[in-house]
Order: sequence, then structure tokens, then C-alpha cells
Amino acid sequence: MQIIQKEIHLNPFPRGFHLITSQIISEIPEMRNIQQGLLHVFIQHTSASLSINENADPSVRRDFERSFNDIVRENQPYYEHDYEGSDDMPAHIKASMLGASLSIPVRGGKLNMGTWQGIYLCEHRNRGGSRHLVLTLMGI
Amino acid sequence: MQIIQKEIHLNPFPRGFHLITSQIISEIPEMRNIQQGLLHVFIQHTSASLSINENADPSVRRDFERSFNDIVRENQPYYEHDYEGSDDMPAHIKASMLGASLSIPVRGGKLNMGTWQGIYLCEHRNRGGSRHLVLTLMGI
Amino acid sequence: MQIIQKEIHLNPFPRGFHLITSQIISEIPEMRNIQQGLLHVFIQHTSASLSINENADPSVRRDFERSFNDIVRENQPYYEHDYEGSDDMPAHIKASMLGASLSIPVRGGKLNMGTWQGIYLCEHRNRGGSRHLVLTLMGI
Repeated sequence: MQIIQKEIHLNPFPRGFHLITSQIISEIPEMRNIQQGLLHVFIQHTSASLSINENADPSVRRDFERSFNDIVRENQPYYEHDYEGSDDMPAHIKASMLGASLSIPVRGGKLNMGTWQGIYLCEHRNRGGSRHLVLTLMGI
Repeated sequence: MQIIQKEIHLNPFPRGFHLITSQIISEIPEMRNIQQGLLHVFIQHTSASLSINENADPSVRRDFERSFNDIVRENQPYYEHDYEGSDDMPAHIKASMLGASLSIPVRGGKLNMGTWQGIYLCEHRNRGGSRHLVLTLMGI
Repeated sequence: MQIIQKEIHLNPFPRGFHLITSQIISEIPEMRNIQQGLLHVFIQHTSASLSINENADPSVRRDFERSFNDIVRENQPYYEHDYEGSDDMPAHIKASMLGASLSIPVRGGKLNMGTWQGIYLCEHRNRGGSRHLVLTLMGI
């Protein structure tokens, strides 16, 4: 059983939901040598998150942004933590709802996801800047 | 440290939240030989999800269905991705809120969950059909 | 590749979101010997959860409590499972939204989280009592 771990940087994304599957795969070519394992992807931030969802239709990602803005509202009267802007506290809530990490099966040197699954970088800030990820690959 | 990975199929479930703990356990008898480890369960779909919650009272699962229908509404005016039906886009949002995978401790050959915990298959589509899971067991 | 697994108990917390990073680290000193790995933290309950979010400003944790109470309402007319109190069913929903486990990269003997990330114990019951966690450390 082997383990490979590395840190990668993503260029800044605009607020919204973005497919990063191909970048993740290209950053960890060691995966080609893993017949059975798991890839763990961790985001080192509290106002952006990771998720797995539909990889084909861009309207799904736009609907994600609108739905989460509807479910987790800005400018709630009860927010105390608002001095970084109206997008600050909602970004923290969205980040915890979606989560800071993913674990994905690896099989025959590739991610073993469903046909329609892709990895989303969920940028909840208006100007989140570059985001850092830690990739951990375990397997045989 | 060993790793065992397999794919399983679940028969179609109606829309709602369903206990699948016993089926998961029966599909991976190799777990009996693991003294310390983790079982990773991954669903290869974007409109169904996995969660861990109360395993005793069926009314909890019915309340889950009603609550998620209340929090993630159908027929929102802002949905673009609606051509697969009114349950389509809400299913994607619910799937990301709940997540595509679980990691559960294994101890003494068994899942080391709390007394009241069970594994839920969360079917968010009206007719989701058969769902595919990938089980990955790591441990000693 | 080695694996270390242990169960720990948390003293009762009031309802709300609480930082437990330092307690988790102190409970697993074996982490100092892991150069590359993952720490898995699992909560054996269905009305409390774990999350990773902002570790500096206590107002963020207060806003988390208010936001989740706003998004997941008590006393909904459609709740069947209400005989343990108005905080019962909402606690189950919040627990599944946030999740029962975390996986965090370990590097050079330490958790490799971002500067502003901390581990939250999310207590969704008014009187949840002591909570039990299972820690699983895997790495080299």
C-alpha cells in the first residue's frame, strides 16, 4: 500500500461552481500506477468548498450558484460576522454545507466516478483569489 | 495494510430516504477480517446521495424527505436545468448537500457506528432506477 | 503504511458550534510520527456533527448556530418525529447536512489544514450530553 501527497494551487475563479476534474487528474499522474485506491482532495479554505456533481451541462453549475444564494442568504439581520462584506458569512455556511474534502475511488489508474460526475470547486466569495488543495492518494 | 474494492448495484428505490446498512455489510464479508480500518462507500450518481442518520424510527426518514423538499424547492423560477422534470435540479442540489461518499470506522470486523446510526441511500429522483456504489475497505 | 484507531469522549457542549481542534490533536499524539497521511474523525451520533470552518472569530460560530436554525426550522407542521422535543428532528437534518466525519491531511506530524481552519463539534441538541468520536490515523 502506498501513499502520495502533494499540494496544488488553483488560479482564482469567479464566484460560482466550476469543474476542476481535468486539472486534478493532471496534477497527480502517479494515479496511473494505482490499481485500487482512494484519492482524497482537501481545500485549505473556509469560504470555498469541494463537491461532486453533474459534469456536462453548464446550466447545472449556474443553478447551483442561484440555489445556494437562495438557501443561504446574504445580509441576514442576525449576522455578526459581516465586516468582510455581505458575501463573507454566507460563504462560510455554504463551505460547511458542501464540505472541505472529497474521497473518490481509484480503479485501474483512473478516478472511478460515474459517467456524469465531475469535481466542482465551489467559490463562495466574490473575490476568493487563488485556492490551495492537498491531494492524498492511497492505494496499491 | 490491505485494501479491498468492489462495485455493487442497489435495486431501484422510490424517492425518499432508505436504510441500506445491512445490504452494505452483506456485500463486503471481507470486513470480518479487518480489525482496524475504514470502509468508504461512494455513489456514482449526481441525483442520489449517501448519509448516516437515525436507524430506528421510519418517521425520521419520512421527515428527511419532507424537510429536504422544503429547503430545496422544486420549480424555482431561476432554474435553467429543468428539462428532465421538476425533481431534476433539486435532486442535484440535495445530492451535493448530503454528499456522494461516506467513510466509516471498522473495528473488530464490524462497522464501528453509534447504536442509532444507519447508512441512508437518499434517492432524490422520482424514478432514479438502479444505483451503483463503490465500496473500498482499507485496514489491517 | 500504519493505522492507529482510538475512541475518545467529549464532555457535553451547549447547543451550538464549538472548536475542538486542540483536543483532537492532544488525543492522538501518534500523529507526530506520521510524515504523510490522513486523520479521519467520526462522530457516533445522529444529532451532532463535525465540520471544518473559521477558527479565529467566535462570532462566526454564533452565526453558524443562527443560520442553521433559520435554514432548518423547528416545529414544522410536517414533522412526525417530534416526541423528543422541538430540537430533535432539526438536529437530525443538520447532522446529515454537515456530516458525521472529516478526513484531514497529515503532513510532517501535524494536521495540514489552512491557517484559518479549525475542527467544529456541531451540537444540535439542547442537551446532547457527552459525544463519542472515533479517530483513525493512516499514513507513513
